[in-house]
Amino acid sequence: MAHLKKTDLNALESRYRANLINSCSGIKSVNLIGSTNNSGITNLAIFNSVMHIGSNPPMLGFILRPTTVRRDTYNNILENKQFTINQIPYHLIEQAHQTSAKYEVNASEFDELNIEQEFIEEFEAPFVKDSAIKMACRYVNSYLIEENGCRLIIGEIEHIIYDEKGQAEDGWLDVSKLKSTACIGLDAYVETQLIKRLSYAKPNENLKQISHGS
Amino acid sequence: MAHLKKTDLNALESRYRANLINSCSGIKSVNLIGSTNNSGITNLAIFNSVMHIGSNPPMLGFILRPTTVRRDTYNNILENKQFTINQIPYHLIEQAHQTSAKYEVNASEFDELNIEQEFIEEFEAPFVKDSAIKMACRYVNSYLIEENGCRLIIGEIEHIIYDEKGQAEDGWLDVSKLKSTACIGLDAYVETQLIKRLSYAKPNENLKQISHGS
Repeated sequence: MAHLKKTDLNALESRYRANLINSCSGIKSVNLIGSTNNSGITNLAIFNSVMHIGSNPPMLGFILRPTTVRRDTYNNILENKQFTINQIPYHLIEQAHQTSAKYEVNASEFDELNIEQEFIEEFEAPFVKDSAIKMACRYVNSYLIEENGCRLIIGEIEHIIYDEKGQAEDGWLDVSKLKSTACIGLDAYVETQLIKRLSYAKPNENLKQISHGS
Repeated sequence: MAHLKKTDLNALESRYRANLINSCSGIKSVNLIGSTNNSGITNLAIFNSVMHIGSNPPMLGFILRPTTVRRDTYNNILENKQFTINQIPYHLIEQAHQTSAKYEVNASEFDELNIEQEFIEEFEAPFVKDSAIKMACRYVNSYLIEENGCRLIIGEIEHIIYDEKGQAEDGWLDVSKLKSTACIGLDAYVETQLIKRLSYAKPNENLKQISHGS
């Protein structure tokens, strides 16, 4: 086993350290966040930090990097308080990754990268048509992380749209079955396969396997 | 496609809504967090919310649920400012899941569940011996999420220990190759397989595939 201490970590070349630290916490979700500015120009950007905040009320969050450079997603969310979160199907991995390139502010990644967008009534931010699971969120709050200038952005889910063939009877969505990718670090994409679901754990009681049920 | 609106979400039975909202954001990391109290009793608990906060300084975070019930991990971290984050190998999935059962405060999950612990010099919190990637973190800060009483807990990485056969030349760790699991929702565990790594994206430049290099 390799063992790096704090002084070793400080001494690493910055890109090497970024690769290591971004991958050490394990497999991550990866999503495309859709937004629109007040001129109606849509934006789509890849994020590997979308997280569950709570289910009642239903809220998701994500980490926004420091706003020392232009952040279109953040600016759009501040303008109209809306964004969408879209899971990435295997066939869109390259286009999704390419959304991280710095396009002009008046260019939409949907057009630049030939990703089909779609809209629903009563919501201005664009969805990714081919996503198997997508949420429309209304901005709720943000928390500035003083240690490095990142922000935790929180939104409440107002719409959730998903392919029902991935849903179990108890509400759970089988992301693996719906062939949505996940990632490692900043640039690696993985496919996943369900091993098993396990019952609610109690002391001195054997775990049971839950039927996938979908 | 199923389409649930805010009123539909509010009307769902609470366990069904929790399953749906916990799985909709995609595949998640899953880690065991090790800690110890001032009496030297070790604790181990499963978390599906460990996230990258920054690489310089190297920091990770996780979401702690409301402290309206006893939270041993949180209490221990407040007591001695230390915790470890350990990736979960496939063969420990059932024991890892079982750490979510409510054991007595003076019982160590390592003993109860026959998970082997290990220690390093200059650090009191226990590691999971069988983990392929593990970090020792020092508590830095916490942010109370006012919307639902959860907390974002942030720690700085002081040690990182990993199986070097999973590391690429540029620092990146192949979590898939190291056979660490990931999860969907609250109770499902997946195995993963690398599809590809992609080069840094720039406008009007074709992406290249990065050799896995490990």
